Amino acid sequence: MDERAPIGVFDSGLGGLTAVRELRRILPGEDIVYFGDTGRVPYGSRGRDTIIQYAKQDIAFLLEQGVKYIIAACGTVSSTLPADWAAGLPVPYTGVVAPAAAAAARASRSGRIGVIGTEATVKSGSYTAAITALRPDAAVTAGACPLFVPLVENGYFAPDDPVTCLVAQDYLAGVQAAGVDTLILGCTHYPLIAPVIGRLMGPGVRLIDPGRETALTAREDLARRGLLRPDGTAGTARYYVSDSTDNFARLAGWFLGEYAGGPVTRTTVDHYPVQ
Amino acid sequence: MDERAPIGVFDSGLGGLTAVRELRRILPGEDIVYFGDTGRVPYGSRGRDTIIQYAKQDIAFLLEQGVKYIIAACGTVSSTLPADWAAGLPVPYTGVVAPAAAAAARASRSGRIGVIGTEATVKSGSYTAAITALRPDAAVTAGACPLFVPLVENGYFAPDDPVTCLVAQDYLAGVQAAGVDTLILGCTHYPLIAPVIGRLMGPGVRLIDPGRETALTAREDLARRGLLRPDGTAGTARYYVSDSTDNFARLAGWFLGEYAGGPVTRTTVDHYPVQ
Repeated sequence: MDERAPIGVFDSGLGGLTAVRELRRILPGEDIVYFGDTGRVPYGSRGRDTIIQYAKQDIAFLLEQGVKYIIAACGTVSSTLPADWAAGLPVPYTGVVAPAAAAAARASRSGRIGVIGTEATVKSGSYTAAITALRPDAAVTAGACPLFVPLVENGYFAPDDPVTCLVAQDYLAGVQAAGVDTLILGCTHYPLIAPVIGRLMGPGVRLIDPGRETALTAREDLARRGLLRPDGTAGTARYYVSDSTDNFARLAGWFLGEYAGGPVTRTTVDHYPVQ
Repeated sequence: MDERAPIGVFDSGLGGLTAVRELRRILPGEDIVYFGDTGRVPYGSRGRDTIIQYAKQDIAFLLEQGVKYIIAACGTVSSTLPADWAAGLPVPYTGVVAPAAAAAARASRSGRIGVIGTEATVKSGSYTAAITALRPDAAVTAGACPLFVPLVENGYFAPDDPVTCLVAQDYLAGVQAAGVDTLILGCTHYPLIAPVIGRLMGPGVRLIDPGRETALTAREDLARRGLLRPDGTAGTARYYVSDSTDNFARLAGWFLGEYAGGPVTRTTVDHYPVQ
């Protein structure tokens, strides 16, 4: 594998760009190819078979781009794609669940840890399994937030957006009642509404951003495998989406912050056969 | 064409079932094949090319089922699929825009008519064009409601749901300010939240249900073409969806009312070539 090859990152839509932002901070010399399945977003309210089919097609596209490493920057995919299938890929793969679970297990003082995610993520029990494997004393409370992805993808992420605040109040009641001291934002869309979530949870609750934790894990992983890009030049980013590029142009800046930029191209992935 | 063949109905998801309910009331002797693209819902926030591709694949599936007539029970598809392409289909086709626009043009006293729909529907200007063609004096005010479909598809349709009420308040401000006396629910998902919309608009505003108007149009159209099913037996309904059938089972009753029932099968349509 060529260590100058790009890192491949994918998500159901634009949420995974929060992981790209962190990757560009933490690994500024790496090239990135991003695929956002904006033609089929959201994933988290769909059934398991559909999510697995879509994820495999997204990965087929990234492999065709010659990536050296694949990051599923999507809590739903990370919770659903079978680990043994991912282990058979020709390049290393990581999701966001293991890195975020490890960070939460380290950060929590009380062991009372909350997780919010899509319906598919919560139903899978992925975060609970990963946390209790590391910290058997942990009490994990998980809550599904099915409207958060549509809200974020439709631009309802202002810190004082009344609709998002009302929905969040409802969704967070369970983790608030459980008295968690650490809350995993178990979907890469959620950092966009972290101000709303943080205000409702209060200053004593540590929020874990899966994109950031996964970027840190990717750096370690690439270093251990001798896959870090050797030269010191600044990395580039190329973006692909499965729907019109208009929405990407309109929303990407919110997710990427100061790391916006790079060409965006429309592509299709639904023709890839699923094995 | 065999008049005993079924009527084909499709939608981005489950909203089109409100049209099926009306069809079963108005044409109880007809068989119906329904396709809901639940694996790719919603359509209304996607780009034009993506919507057209999806609609053509949905239609290819229905044609394979041997339908005699096709109804796009989806405001977004009805507003986006080119009429000349649909005119080339081997069976008659109708969307929901023309029937709903005609009903609104007839119903309005003042000529001030409102339309609410998805972003794609409003951007297309389809309802405004259809209304003013029939009634040049009409003043049409259109408003996009991008969150209504995710809200309905996620079950937020109780008459007093606080989130849906808050979102509706915001979305309806424009048509309220325009003083409309008639409001087209320009998306087949919206009849599910008609109680919320009706309460906000007040009793003086007539709500037009596109599914109902389209079922009435289909009856006339089938009769004129000699395609009404001749025998007097009760019609059946078969349902197909592109995602897991679990969500269908959970939500279909809300859309279909007393007309629920009929087998539901998962299928795929994304392999159909698009011409």
